[in-house]
This record gives sequence, structure tokens and C-alpha cells, in this order.
Amino acid sequence: MGIRMEPIGRIANEVAFGRSNVCWESITSTIMLLPQWVEGLDGIEEFSHIIVIFYLDRAKSDGSLRLKTHPMGRPELPEVGIFATRSPFRPNGIGVTTVRLLRREGDKLIVEGLDAYDGTPVLDIKPYLTRGDLVSGVKVAGWTQRLWQMLDEEA
Amino acid sequence: MGIRMEPIGRIANEVAFGRSNVCWESITSTIMLLPQWVEGLDGIEEFSHIIVIFYLDRAKSDGSLRLKTHPMGRPELPEVGIFATRSPFRPNGIGVTTVRLLRREGDKLIVEGLDAYDGTPVLDIKPYLTRGDLVSGVKVAGWTQRLWQMLDEEA
Repeated sequence: MGIRMEPIGRIANEVAFGRSNVCWESITSTIMLLPQWVEGLDGIEEFSHIIVIFYLDRAKSDGSLRLKTHPMGRPELPEVGIFATRSPFRPNGIGVTTVRLLRREGDKLIVEGLDAYDGTPVLDIKPYLTRGDLVSGVKVAGWTQRLWQMLDEEA
Repeated sequence: MGIRMEPIGRIANEVAFGRSNVCWESITSTIMLLPQWVEGLDGIEEFSHIIVIFYLDRAKSDGSLRLKTHPMGRPELPEVGIFATRSPFRPNGIGVTTVRLLRREGDKLIVEGLDAYDGTPVLDIKPYLTRGDLVSGVKVAGWTQRLWQMLDEEA
């Protein structure tokens, strides 16, 4: 079964494809919606955070997707399955990131913390809800803590 | 630009399409991965929560998608844009839900709280991270609080 999707808009920011060591948390991006979808944004400004679903169009592999990977390419970290990581190299190339919504300007959403290159196609936008998206008692793999420590030391 | 996706697996649970007033938070579902993707799950059992990205294949509209809606079809609530709601009727039909991972059994993930009907195609699975997915200072629209109050009273 094949599923077809179409972008609803694009991401614009200062991060050109290929730049490395980007501190995405502090990057401001503009999501520009196609005219036919703009009315669907009404009321979104009442939310402080939104979930952006985007298409990882620069992470295309040549048909040979690896099922296991060292998180963020760090050999010090254990090799784990791609579904246990947020690697951009995944079967359907879907990125999901929660971002802070700074403001809406008509057909544009200005957001902070979106880890996508300039020009990335957007597939969907959802409000981040305190019931469902914000969960308690979260346990993460030990390697994530080590990864975040590395990233903090390099920042 | 058209984007093509393929299911990586299916959701199995006791909730047949069309059932209403389902308390999804307490539903246990099994995500069954296709054989070629199973190795990609390795290490996922170290996470307490995962994000399931699925295809809302029963929510197809007849080409006439409404851009504004009363959340969960409740006329008491304000009409807002679809991107300000989690309505299943959306341009690309992508559902994103954070669920508790109860356990992995080979090619199966047993999860709690997945709001998808039996047979729903799965597009991606990601670990829920304390950095990024769990945010602080979240503000939600007033109508969400009223909706949750209604749902709690009906439960």
C-alpha cells in the first residue's frame, strides 16, 4: 500500500543544508504555509508550543537504509536500532519536533527550536497538549544522557 | 511535489473502526512491525515512552477537507483551525501520539494509550526524550481545559 502526501508549507531559517554543529534549540525558523491552508492556523496562537511534522528530504539514503546506528554518529555510544533514535535516516523520513511558538503573522508561524534545514517541506502542524504530549515518569536510555552531556560540553 | 510513504507495520487492538466514546488512555495496543524493520527496534525497550506516527486511513475525507472545526465535534467549543486541534481530518492524515511502552516481544511493541483503530498503518516510531519532547512552561488554549473537563465527566 502506497501513501501519498503533499507539503503544506516550507521552513525558512538561516541554516543551509550541510551545516554541522548547529545548536538547534536557539534557532528561530519561519514556517510559511501554502495559501490554501492558512485558515487552518486560526486559534493556534493560544498555544505556547506546537508539534511540527516535516519531511526529511535531505536525509535520503540510496535505498540502503541501515537498521542500526551509533546515535548522532558517535562511536562512543552503543549501536541501537533506528526506531530507538531520532536519526533523520528512517524508512518514511518523517521528522517530529516540539517547538516554542513565538508568534503567528498571517500565513507564517515564527518558532524556536526547529531542527530542520532551510527549505524543508512541512507535512503537518499540531498543538502540543498538556494532556497526552506532556507525560510523567519518563525513563530514557542511558546513552541519551551521555549524548546530551557531550553536546553540552561542546556547546 | 508528491511524497510517497509505506507502512512499516500495523496496530492491533480491540477497538474496531467506528466505535465511539473510547477511553483511549486505557487501551492496550500491539504494534506489529514488518519483518524487514524489526532489527530497527533494538534498544527501544530502554525507553518508557515512545512516539507513534501513524496514518489516519479511516479519516479520509471526500476531497473536501474543512479548515475549521469544533474540537471533537462539540458545538459548545469554539470553531478553530484544524492545525490548532488534533482532529484526524487533516491534509496529510498523520497521527502523532505519545504512548507508554509496556514491553517489546520480538517484532511486537505492546503499548498503552494509542488512539488508533485496529488495523491502522504505522509510519514511524521514535523514542520520547526528556530533552525536546518534554517541555516546561506549556500554555494551552482555554477550550482544551473545557474539553478535558467534559471528557472526564462523561468517563
